[in-house]
Amino acid sequence: MPTNHLDTLSETLLMGPGPSCVPPQVYSALSRYTIGHLDPRFIALMDEIKTRLRTLFQTDNALTVPMSGTGSSGMEACFVNLVEPGDRVLILKNGVFGMRMEDLASRLGAEVDVLEFEWGTPVVVEDVRAKLAQQAYKIVAIVHAETSTGVVNPVAEVGELVKGTDSLYLLDCVTSLGGMPVEIDNWGVDATYSGTQKCLSCPPGLAPLSFSDKAVAALKARKTKVPNWYLDLTMIINYWEGATRAYHHTAPINMLYGLYAALGVILDEGMENGFARHRQAHDYLVAGLADLGLEMAVAPACRLPMLNAVTIPAGADDAGVRKALLKEHDIEIGAGLGPLAGKIWRIGLMGHTARRENVDRLLAALKGYL
Amino acid sequence: MPTNHLDTLSETLLMGPGPSCVPPQVYSALSRYTIGHLDPRFIALMDEIKTRLRTLFQTDNALTVPMSGTGSSGMEACFVNLVEPGDRVLILKNGVFGMRMEDLASRLGAEVDVLEFEWGTPVVVEDVRAKLAQQAYKIVAIVHAETSTGVVNPVAEVGELVKGTDSLYLLDCVTSLGGMPVEIDNWGVDATYSGTQKCLSCPPGLAPLSFSDKAVAALKARKTKVPNWYLDLTMIINYWEGATRAYHHTAPINMLYGLYAALGVILDEGMENGFARHRQAHDYLVAGLADLGLEMAVAPACRLPMLNAVTIPAGADDAGVRKALLKEHDIEIGAGLGPLAGKIWRIGLMGHTARRENVDRLLAALKGYL
Repeated sequence: MPTNHLDTLSETLLMGPGPSCVPPQVYSALSRYTIGHLDPRFIALMDEIKTRLRTLFQTDNALTVPMSGTGSSGMEACFVNLVEPGDRVLILKNGVFGMRMEDLASRLGAEVDVLEFEWGTPVVVEDVRAKLAQQAYKIVAIVHAETSTGVVNPVAEVGELVKGTDSLYLLDCVTSLGGMPVEIDNWGVDATYSGTQKCLSCPPGLAPLSFSDKAVAALKARKTKVPNWYLDLTMIINYWEGATRAYHHTAPINMLYGLYAALGVILDEGMENGFARHRQAHDYLVAGLADLGLEMAVAPACRLPMLNAVTIPAGADDAGVRKALLKEHDIEIGAGLGPLAGKIWRIGLMGHTARRENVDRLLAALKGYL
Repeated sequence: MPTNHLDTLSETLLMGPGPSCVPPQVYSALSRYTIGHLDPRFIALMDEIKTRLRTLFQTDNALTVPMSGTGSSGMEACFVNLVEPGDRVLILKNGVFGMRMEDLASRLGAEVDVLEFEWGTPVVVEDVRAKLAQQAYKIVAIVHAETSTGVVNPVAEVGELVKGTDSLYLLDCVTSLGGMPVEIDNWGVDATYSGTQKCLSCPPGLAPLSFSDKAVAALKARKTKVPNWYLDLTMIINYWEGATRAYHHTAPINMLYGLYAALGVILDEGMENGFARHRQAHDYLVAGLADLGLEMAVAPACRLPMLNAVTIPAGADDAGVRKALLKEHDIEIGAGLGPLAGKIWRIGLMGHTARRENVDRLLAALKGYL
């Protein structure tokens, strides 16, 4: 009898850098009857997803839609719709996702400048101010919550610098959205994207995106077609907005059911309540780790609540501990990436995962391996 | 009390151009517990998906993976990985999806030549032979099953012409895969993509793709980076193959559970049995439509079994009939696209939908509106 791999799946406590634990309402939504992507009932559900996403993003942006791919497709969509060859782009880099932005924008023919900050520390606002005084950019891009390091960047402060310029302010909020305040309009963000598998607690597969009117104007003013048919927002708008709802590509219908339900769970709890739950679970984790003699890798002032970088203690077997947690306790935590590989564990408290009882379970299991 | 849009969904008989009806095993798979994308159990499931896809594609191609987007992302992936600016591409066009290839390849800077054939008729092999005698191409691209017209193209015959050349043969088998033979190796296809929501009977969200060794060599010989980070197969290979499984982007985990189950349903039935079921349902539909006085828009020799283009009879209300079928009978059929809008209905018999009892239900309902 060959293995049925679906039977190998167990309820796993997902405390890595995403995916996070999925609430029952979302699992149930995923398996609802598939209907057509042009069915009026589906159009109504799409409209409600847009409304819910605007609430989460704290924006009035008309163009607020989920892209049909995982979080990275949101990054791709933001850059490919806004960059034309030769455009100047400034990337504020202090981790893997800033590095990814640099790679991605370069592939599109942008003239990319990078301001790099030490991994594990935040973007320094004064350095950005000095850079912007020297050079004008079409796009200034920053990551809100650097999933690779556990650092929160000063998005509002950098936004104040960008507001007075012609630049578009591009924000990665993959890991922050739903777990801490993300204020797209207040911060002057022009283009942003997130992912479903972090604090939204929906399985991976969609990338919520929002463009300000200024970004839409830049999109419409392009001299060349968007060099990516699949992610071309000038066409995707016509499916997600307006009266005719012109077919572009077939939407990922059941994933959108999941997102709809996941957003419902967040709004039913209340966003502020959810943010507080994340902070409380984080504080509880930090205290519990200290009791075990473990240290956080990031300074308190710039720690993310939902992604906790923990210094691997001398003598501990990085991969061995992670494997044992998964195999013996059904708990997943994350490894370090890039220069932080082997140096940190990444403990996620994202969305549905961010609860004291989950922290207790992890601490009890971890204790046995230290 | 606001509407819960999930409660508006009912079991709908999906007889349009996709999505198709989803079997219970697939719905059940979609809502299995999410685990991590680097979890060894998930890696094992990915390996089995690759094996199953190779069986369906009838190929030994090592690089056979689902892309993390809907069918059109598969088209994007094939072109963006193989095209560099200035490359010559020949598109054989006789419908919307050939037109989409033309648009997409042009955006990537290809020098695109198009051989166009009347919509509703197949590609003419002799015309292709003459064109290939005049000019060498890096890529020759064709659509197997033109979903917009219901026509099957002579993919094997064109493949014979391409075999003796340096060209890469690129095939769209979005609508054919799983519903009729698709013989990637026998036909000499170098790059192909499909979608999950047609004859695989999984909800939309993934694009199975396969590259021959010749296509992989062309990919590796690129002078420039792939201008699309999200779909860059040089990096995606490292997640789907080899010992290390380097993280690229977070895979759409639950959608992959669904694909795994959908492929299992097809292989359990037996591919040949499934193809026969599609043909029988098609013959039964054509006979039943004739009894109602309706005519097929495509000649018998080049009709697809899974996508039936039916001429809308004089005096019938195109949109009115489709709306009534959906609203009063929970049956979806498709409209015509482009020049065929208002002229044809597109009746899908894809995957799980392709059954006599479904045809009976449609014919009984349709009768009331003619």
